[in-house]
Amino acid sequence: MTTPFSTAAVHIDLGDRSYPILIGQGLLDTPSTWTDLPKASTALIVTNTTVGPLYAHRLQTALSTHYKRVRCVVLPDGESHKDWATLNLIFDELLGQGADRKTVLFALGGGVVGDMTGFAAACYMRGVPFVQVPTTLLAQVDSSVGGKTAINHPMGKNMIGAFYQPQRVVCDLDTLQTLPQREMSAGLAEIIKYGPIADMVFLDWIEAHLDALLARDPQALAHAVRRSCEIKAWVVAQDEREGGVRAILNFGHTFGHAIEAGLGFGVWLHGEAVGCGMVMAANLSQRLGWVDEAFVRRLTTLIARAGLPTAGPQLGAQAYLHHMRVDKKAEAGEIKCVLIESPGRATVRAVPDAVLVQVIDAGCAA
Amino acid sequence: MTTPFSTAAVHIDLGDRSYPILIGQGLLDTPSTWTDLPKASTALIVTNTTVGPLYAHRLQTALSTHYKRVRCVVLPDGESHKDWATLNLIFDELLGQGADRKTVLFALGGGVVGDMTGFAAACYMRGVPFVQVPTTLLAQVDSSVGGKTAINHPMGKNMIGAFYQPQRVVCDLDTLQTLPQREMSAGLAEIIKYGPIADMVFLDWIEAHLDALLARDPQALAHAVRRSCEIKAWVVAQDEREGGVRAILNFGHTFGHAIEAGLGFGVWLHGEAVGCGMVMAANLSQRLGWVDEAFVRRLTTLIARAGLPTAGPQLGAQAYLHHMRVDKKAEAGEIKCVLIESPGRATVRAVPDAVLVQVIDAGCAA
Repeated sequence: MTTPFSTAAVHIDLGDRSYPILIGQGLLDTPSTWTDLPKASTALIVTNTTVGPLYAHRLQTALSTHYKRVRCVVLPDGESHKDWATLNLIFDELLGQGADRKTVLFALGGGVVGDMTGFAAACYMRGVPFVQVPTTLLAQVDSSVGGKTAINHPMGKNMIGAFYQPQRVVCDLDTLQTLPQREMSAGLAEIIKYGPIADMVFLDWIEAHLDALLARDPQALAHAVRRSCEIKAWVVAQDEREGGVRAILNFGHTFGHAIEAGLGFGVWLHGEAVGCGMVMAANLSQRLGWVDEAFVRRLTTLIARAGLPTAGPQLGAQAYLHHMRVDKKAEAGEIKCVLIESPGRATVRAVPDAVLVQVIDAGCAA
Repeated sequence: MTTPFSTAAVHIDLGDRSYPILIGQGLLDTPSTWTDLPKASTALIVTNTTVGPLYAHRLQTALSTHYKRVRCVVLPDGESHKDWATLNLIFDELLGQGADRKTVLFALGGGVVGDMTGFAAACYMRGVPFVQVPTTLLAQVDSSVGGKTAINHPMGKNMIGAFYQPQRVVCDLDTLQTLPQREMSAGLAEIIKYGPIADMVFLDWIEAHLDALLARDPQALAHAVRRSCEIKAWVVAQDEREGGVRAILNFGHTFGHAIEAGLGFGVWLHGEAVGCGMVMAANLSQRLGWVDEAFVRRLTTLIARAGLPTAGPQLGAQAYLHHMRVDKKAEAGEIKCVLIESPGRATVRAVPDAVLVQVIDAGCAA
């Protein structure tokens, strides 16, 4: 347990659905972290078999001063369990305990736990409050913020879900100290993403501090998480339900989803697929003449330094296209990609299959 | 096919989620019924094995001038199929067809089809537009209006769902001509409900026109559906997400849910359980001294005349309490009921178990 040396708060401005993101060390055990949440008799912590043994007891202790009953449900770990059967474990626990519609859910874990807990909260009795307590870098900088919740369907990732905002997001940086290195790298992919789409000054900073981030320096992490959340908050506040600009947050994700779906969910981590997908999307942007080779090389180098793959698996271009066509951005069968218009500015465009095939063929490992 | 002699429109006022309810004869085949809906390349009609053969082809023809592809998915009929496995038939069809997130869903059928289609629309790619085309009296006067969507969980009815508003509700009164008499009665339960909770003048009217309604006189049906929708619209506009006053629409439903759950979903129709539940709730209101015996007798007589049961099945009071405690209105284990404060005015109150036991014991068939 560390005394918080500094706690930052980033505000997501969504009218009556606004909420703060708390970022700092030692937040899990700081009483003020958990005050002023909706009143209820019951809290349910949703976690998984990896994170639960590390942090569930501490969260349970912290919450027990606020709720009469604090229960915990432990899900199997991994993207392959992001399905209806696992979601039902949460409903079974809630209904088995007679949990009413004021019950507050706490998502303690990474992106999968956050997405599933959020979707369970959105659906249980047509909506109960929930709090995100992300314990992975990827969840702290991306998936826990903005209210996207979902489960996978055998025919597509995150196809069944809801836009449903949490009451609060609590990013305790100390929890990142127990994260496997592969997951640190995966989280860095989403941090790097914010540079080319919105803030090249931040990209400079990431390049300068990548070694500190990989070494989990708390001050470097604090800045990276805060700046990422600020950019995401700014985008989400403009377009909560992804009618337009929010789609730029999916830079690298259309190619990335194809990799994840093509290999089977969970073989590559989401952040790994996004890292590689950003290289492909940058190449595509260059092919369209919007960015130069130096920009693509710079981004590719940084992604590689972060410990992420920069070449896609050899699935065959048609398999990529097949999976890209069920992406949620696709419209009337046309594949849409997030492209870099100029460094720091992104846009969404329909891309002809023939161009995509060239990029995929060039971007896959020989 | 009938020429519409009059089409009424009731407006649900929910800011940017506002929509009209069209009520009239021949609406299914009237081109103007389907204009100005969200643009899309694909429409999906969701119906069931009973309603599909009667009306799906006509709806498909009407929609084919507005959408390039009009697909149809036919679900098994009945409350017992209001579950995840059946919901997944909708997702399988959507994903199998590569339906994008502009796809418009059309719920053609009764309350179960409407609730499931609405929930599928709420969740597919985190939300696509949908239109309610209710073909039962119960769905036209109650379940298709107001945005409550859900599926059942083995441990409770409508426990997994969303508040998600349709783009439009189309009540074609002609479709009521093919409805089994038992379902006409079930629909009358929800119409009768609006009297004691909100409008005793309407209750007078129902008493005077019950025979015409049972004989499916189009003008009587038009008035009953319109007035029911007006009252529901007025309540929902005040409280979309059931934080307060909306709960009065559940008059008779807490006892009713216990009957449905206790017997197994689908043994009694929802409207039958609500009819009987209203008798119990009226008795409870009398026990608290809020209404007199004459009021209870009047309501009981009307419910019996509508062809509905007025005595509950002998499940034992403890079974009733068990199921009432998982009702969504329950809080911290306390059972809440909608009670009649005075004829035409309802309120929600926590009721001690001992009082409920008396009402249940007195209200069950010997």
